[in-house]
Amino acid sequence: MIIGIIGIGVIGSSLARALRARDAGDEILIADRAADSLRQAEDLRLGDRSFSGATELAPLCDILFVCVPVDGIVAVVRSLAPHIKPGAIVTDVGAVKSGIVEEATRLLAPRAHFIGGHPITADSEQGGPAAGRADLFHGKPYLLIDNPAAPDAQQKLAALLRGIGAEVRGIGAARHDQILAFTSHLPHLLAYAAMRAAPEASRRAGEDVKTYTGGSFRDLTRVAGAGSDVWASILLLNRAPLLEAYGILRQEIDRLISLVEKGDRDALKTYIDEAQALRLRHSRDSAKG
Amino acid sequence: MIIGIIGIGVIGSSLARALRARDAGDEILIADRAADSLRQAEDLRLGDRSFSGATELAPLCDILFVCVPVDGIVAVVRSLAPHIKPGAIVTDVGAVKSGIVEEATRLLAPRAHFIGGHPITADSEQGGPAAGRADLFHGKPYLLIDNPAAPDAQQKLAALLRGIGAEVRGIGAARHDQILAFTSHLPHLLAYAAMRAAPEASRRAGEDVKTYTGGSFRDLTRVAGAGSDVWASILLLNRAPLLEAYGILRQEIDRLISLVEKGDRDALKTYIDEAQALRLRHSRDSAKG
Repeated sequence: MIIGIIGIGVIGSSLARALRARDAGDEILIADRAADSLRQAEDLRLGDRSFSGATELAPLCDILFVCVPVDGIVAVVRSLAPHIKPGAIVTDVGAVKSGIVEEATRLLAPRAHFIGGHPITADSEQGGPAAGRADLFHGKPYLLIDNPAAPDAQQKLAALLRGIGAEVRGIGAARHDQILAFTSHLPHLLAYAAMRAAPEASRRAGEDVKTYTGGSFRDLTRVAGAGSDVWASILLLNRAPLLEAYGILRQEIDRLISLVEKGDRDALKTYIDEAQALRLRHSRDSAKG
Repeated sequence: MIIGIIGIGVIGSSLARALRARDAGDEILIADRAADSLRQAEDLRLGDRSFSGATELAPLCDILFVCVPVDGIVAVVRSLAPHIKPGAIVTDVGAVKSGIVEEATRLLAPRAHFIGGHPITADSEQGGPAAGRADLFHGKPYLLIDNPAAPDAQQKLAALLRGIGAEVRGIGAARHDQILAFTSHLPHLLAYAAMRAAPEASRRAGEDVKTYTGGSFRDLTRVAGAGSDVWASILLLNRAPLLEAYGILRQEIDRLISLVEKGDRDALKTYIDEAQALRLRHSRDSAKG
């Protein structure tokens, strides 16, 4: 099989490594607009052949991974669509799906199939080709957006991804965006806000509050290290589900703040007990899976 | 020197181990109301002598560490005050200071000195005597509440704590509570609320959202594993500073939500850039120590 990877950052280069390690005789073609990333990828022998543009690589590939930032996916699909091999499968790795899947599917039909993808590795993987790892997807959920019009294509892609150790699961685009808004985009929003709140907290305390942090503030703000290029796009592309997720959280914060204000110790204990039970169950489930 | 430790959980038993490892010829006396904890501590040889009550141990000690949960500190100090050795130093390890320090100081004066303490190890250390570690305080901030009426006592305690590797810093009680409200108590509040919001998010998505979490939701909710016995007390004892800290955060969340609502991409990018810069600077500073 000839597999193309467009965009050779952490995710793209990890895919290249993982597919190579699968050792199934695939030919791996890579492309990146950034000449230095491409050169670095060549030095690392990540692909069998490399291309500066997606359009030259597109006619050759059976499966094409578009691993560019989320706001560039549709443009890449648009540019390669006229050149795509008939029957080919195109997939992406973006963190928001609804609009992208719809548009990309339309651009490729009826010649080729788009199957939206989202590997849930760690949040905010960053770095160039050198930062990739062959085992990045191993044992991690890899979500594929259900495409009832192309079940064979989805199955073929799923099999390939299982071959690199991913735990492939199908899901609808809208549900994906709704769930990820809560579990990923909202925590990022909170991390950014908490980090931006620190200077005002320091100003009022007359001292840098960040020098007094144990683990909890560090954990809360860890993902604020994720850059605006990707994350401004994600927050905006997934605006409505994100605002809904914040509404849900906000209701709980208001409830909890009101228990603190009222000094209702028994209700507060019960609230925390239930949160703790959910968290411990979550840890156990995560450990199992 | 004769050092007493009342309450032999993770912090108390770590202190016992660390003081023993210091090898300065101290005699270490331990007390715990829970017979099984005390027996376990004896089996682990954490103290030279053990007592079931604080009152029997109090007359013997030069320095007394009260390592009980935050809502029990004042009661313990009250019970041992009449028996305390003249000139002794009493300290605690609670996460909230203002009310406790004031009350404990009053209860001991003028016979003995109270110096409030707060080791910032990891948040929510949990477990019994067996979970303690001799190096728990090594390289970690250990805050002492400035006591201008007893500078010698504070200095003596600081020297002892430096001897077990702690980075001792003096701070006022009100400022301590204000800063920790932001860096520790507020992140706990958010973690509890986010965990409690998950079932509603799952209900709306028709699926358990927690099975789709990467690192960010896990990080956000990690400290929701901390139990209500300690944390209901902390949130209530530090109510006013906590509500102020939430007000500061809330303003930033509102700002960020409004940028998302308006779809103001440039302003959103700038907001995230600044948050990221603060976070990266924070990581570097933390790494430095």
